[in-house]
Amino acid sequence: MGNESWSAVPHLTTALTGPLQEIETHLLQNQAGIERWFRSQWQQTPAPFYCSVDLRNAGFKLAPVDTNLFPAGFNNLNTAFVSLAVQAVQAALERICPSAGGVLIIPENHTRNLFYFESLAALVEILTKAGLRVRLGSLLPDITEPKPVDLPSGRRLMLEPLVRRGDKITVADFEPCFVLLNNDLSGGLPDILQNPGQPVVPPISLGWWNRLKSNHFTHYRRIASEFAEIVRLDPWLIEPAFRKCGKINFEKREGEDCLVNYVEEVLAEIRVKYREYGIEQEPFAIVKADAGTYGMAIMSVKSADEVRTLNRKQRNKMARAKEGHAVTDIMVQEGVYTFETWGEKNAVAEPVVYMIDHFVIGGFYRVHTDRRADENLNAPGMHFEPLAFAGPCCYPDPLQAPDANPNRFYAYGVIARLALLAAARESKEAAQAPAQTADSLKQANL
Amino acid sequence: MGNESWSAVPHLTTALTGPLQEIETHLLQNQAGIERWFRSQWQQTPAPFYCSVDLRNAGFKLAPVDTNLFPAGFNNLNTAFVSLAVQAVQAALERICPSAGGVLIIPENHTRNLFYFESLAALVEILTKAGLRVRLGSLLPDITEPKPVDLPSGRRLMLEPLVRRGDKITVADFEPCFVLLNNDLSGGLPDILQNPGQPVVPPISLGWWNRLKSNHFTHYRRIASEFAEIVRLDPWLIEPAFRKCGKINFEKREGEDCLVNYVEEVLAEIRVKYREYGIEQEPFAIVKADAGTYGMAIMSVKSADEVRTLNRKQRNKMARAKEGHAVTDIMVQEGVYTFETWGEKNAVAEPVVYMIDHFVIGGFYRVHTDRRADENLNAPGMHFEPLAFAGPCCYPDPLQAPDANPNRFYAYGVIARLALLAAARESKEAAQAPAQTADSLKQANL
Repeated sequence: MGNESWSAVPHLTTALTGPLQEIETHLLQNQAGIERWFRSQWQQTPAPFYCSVDLRNAGFKLAPVDTNLFPAGFNNLNTAFVSLAVQAVQAALERICPSAGGVLIIPENHTRNLFYFESLAALVEILTKAGLRVRLGSLLPDITEPKPVDLPSGRRLMLEPLVRRGDKITVADFEPCFVLLNNDLSGGLPDILQNPGQPVVPPISLGWWNRLKSNHFTHYRRIASEFAEIVRLDPWLIEPAFRKCGKINFEKREGEDCLVNYVEEVLAEIRVKYREYGIEQEPFAIVKADAGTYGMAIMSVKSADEVRTLNRKQRNKMARAKEGHAVTDIMVQEGVYTFETWGEKNAVAEPVVYMIDHFVIGGFYRVHTDRRADENLNAPGMHFEPLAFAGPCCYPDPLQAPDANPNRFYAYGVIARLALLAAARESKEAAQAPAQTADSLKQANL
Repeated sequence: MGNESWSAVPHLTTALTGPLQEIETHLLQNQAGIERWFRSQWQQTPAPFYCSVDLRNAGFKLAPVDTNLFPAGFNNLNTAFVSLAVQAVQAALERICPSAGGVLIIPENHTRNLFYFESLAALVEILTKAGLRVRLGSLLPDITEPKPVDLPSGRRLMLEPLVRRGDKITVADFEPCFVLLNNDLSGGLPDILQNPGQPVVPPISLGWWNRLKSNHFTHYRRIASEFAEIVRLDPWLIEPAFRKCGKINFEKREGEDCLVNYVEEVLAEIRVKYREYGIEQEPFAIVKADAGTYGMAIMSVKSADEVRTLNRKQRNKMARAKEGHAVTDIMVQEGVYTFETWGEKNAVAEPVVYMIDHFVIGGFYRVHTDRRADENLNAPGMHFEPLAFAGPCCYPDPLQAPDANPNRFYAYGVIARLALLAAARESKEAAQAPAQTADSLKQANL
C-alpha cells in the first residue's frame, strides 16, 4: 500500500489511547497464538458463510456492537481486495457444497433502495468471479416475472420470482446447489422457505424472526473471556456490557421498570470501569430491540430517567421495529464511544469489518458528519459516506508501532472474528435445536 | 487495477492467436464448470503446500513446461496480492497442522545466492503474516551456529543449524509443528531427514532424489485429457508431447539411439499438429534431465541429428546436472514457442504462476532480452528481469474480450492448476508407495 492510501484512514482523536495500545500490543505479541486459537475454533465450529461486524473504537476500548449475518454494503469495500473475497468464497464452497455450480441468492425485499442493490451487485460479482452461476430469487409478491434493475454503477441485476419445486427453492429453470440468504427474515419465515431440500446459508433459523442479539452477545461474552485469558487482557476492553429485558411494550408502558433497572445496572457497571481506567467521559447505554435490524427502535441514554420520561413520539418510535413488528424483547447495551474521526470536519467514523467464511476480506468506515460520538450510527434515514479500508486487515506489521494503521486494522480483524465466532456458535446451537416452524412463530407473535 | 498496471503486461506478438483465443473462450464459457471440477479434484487429491509452474504461451498453444514443488522467486510476486498468499497459507494450515504455531523451513544449500535469499525472506514474511513463528534450519555443514544473512532489500534472515532431537527435525529450542521443505533435495536425501516425526511438506519423497519429470507429465497428460473433454478442446493445445529415455550416459555415449528415436518421434508428432493448425514455425524439442532442476543439462533441438553430433563440450554439459550427479534418465519434451514479448527490445517473456494450497496467488514473467523464443529460459547463469503479474489470476472478466489481460491471466491460472493437480496426484502416489530410503538411493546412484 502506498502512503497515499494510508492517509485515507480516520484519525483517532482521543488522548485515552493507553488501554487500546495495550490491546494492540497484546494482539501483536500474541499473533501466532491468536491465529492458532482461531484455527482450532473454526475446526470445532465452522464460520457462517458471511458476516459483517460493526465495531466501536473508543481509543480505550474496542468492541463489536452489532453482528450482521445477512450483510449488505459489499459495494463499500475496497475493490483492490476483491480477490480475497473470491478466494474466501472458494474455500467456503468446499465445505458447503463442493459440487456447487449454481447459487440462488434471496435478497431483501427492497424495491427502490439502490444502495442495497449496488451491494447485491457487488456480492453477485464476487460469487461469479469465484466460478458460480448466480441468480436472484425475490420474495416480493409483485415480482411475477424476471425484472431487471439498472444501477447507477452501470451494473444490472435481474430479480426473478422465487418458486418452490417439490422441496427445492429455485427460480425458473435453475438448479442451485445451495441458497444464499441475503434477507434477514425480519418479517418472519415465509412458507416457501420452510423445510428446504437444499442447503440454505446462513441457516434460516438465524433470521431475525428467530434470532436474538442478547443470545449473540451471551456467546460473545464467553468468547471474549476465553480470548482475554489467552492474551492476558481485561475482557471489558473488548466487550460491551449488556442486559436483556423480555416482554416490553412501550405503547402500553408494560415492563418499563425492568428496563429502567437494567439501564441503571449497565450504567453503574460502566462507571466502575471508567473510574478504574481514569476515563472521564460520561457513561451511556444503548436501548434497542433484541431482534431486528436497520437501526430502528434504537435509543441512546445517559440515565435511567430518560427511559422513564419518554414522550409519546419517542414511545412510538421504540414500539415498532422493521416491517412493523411490535417490539417485545429489548437489549440494554453499554454504549461505546466512537473516537475515530475523519476529514476537516472531524466526522465520526465507525469501522465495519466484513468476513467470508472465517477470512477477513476487508471493511469500511461509516463516516457521518451530523452525529456525536455517543450516538448510534446505523439509524433510519441516516446518511453516511463509506470510506473503504486502505488495508486488508488480515495481518499486522510488527515492524510498525502498535497503533500504526495495519496494526489497527489487524486489531479490527481480530475483534470482528471474535464476534464471527459468537455467530458460529449461535449457528451451531440453532442447528442442534430444531428451528421453529412458521406456525410456532405466528403463535409467538400473537 | 488501473490501466497503468495493465500496461505492464507483455504483448502477444504472434498472429497465430486463433487456437489460443479458442482456449480462452472455452475457459471463459466454462468457468463455473471448471471451478466445480477443480473443487471435486482437490477433495479427492489435496494440493501440495506450494508450487510454481513455468508456462509457455505460443499464442496457438498454452502449456506448462516445468512444475516446481520447492519454489523460489516469491520476491518476484506483486506485493499488492500478498494477502492472497497469506489467506491461502491459513487455509493450507487447517489441513496440515491446525495447531501449528511454528514452522521450520529447510532452505536450499545456497550460501551466496541473494536472489534465493530474497525469495526466502518473502516466503518467511508470508508465513509470519499468516500467524506462524518461522525459523530456518540449514542443511549446510558450515552452519554450526545461527548465521545472519543481510539482504539488499534491508531484510535479514537467520540461518540456524538443523538438528535432530529424537524423531523430530528442528533448530535449537524450537518446536515446529511441521517442516516446510524449500530444498528440492537434488543432492539426495540427507540422513537427518529420514523418517521424521512431524509432518514434512511437500513430502520428502517428492524431492528430485526420487521424483521424475516424466512421471509428473504422465499424470499431466491424463489430467489434460480429462479437462479437455470437459471444455471440449484438443488436449494438445494445453499439453507438451514428451517421451522418457532411461539409462543415458552422454559421456560414455550409451543409450543415444533411443534418445535419437524419441526426438524424431516427438518432432514428428509436433509436425502433424502444426500442419493441422496451419502453424508455420519449425518444430523443436527440449532434451532435459528427467530428475533435476535449475535448468542444467537442457538442450533445445530441431532435428535428431543435433543429438547425434553433440561435441565433447556439449556432452559434458548434458552429462552433469545440479550438484554434479550423473544424468541417467532423460526426458524429450515438445518445445513450445514463447510468443509473449515485452518492452521496446521485444524481450521474450515467460509466465510463471505461483500457487499455495490450491489457490493461485499470483505470478511473474521472466523477461529475457538475450534469448530466442525457442530457447529454454531457465538455464544456468541465465539473467532475467522479473515482471510481476498486474492481476491476481484468480478469476476472469467475462465483460472483456477473451484475450484481455484478466482473461489471459485466468487462463494461466487454470493451466497452472492442471499442473498442480498432476503434482497432487504424484504426491498421493508417493505417499502410497513407501518412499525409498537413503540406502536404496545410494545403491541406485552407484
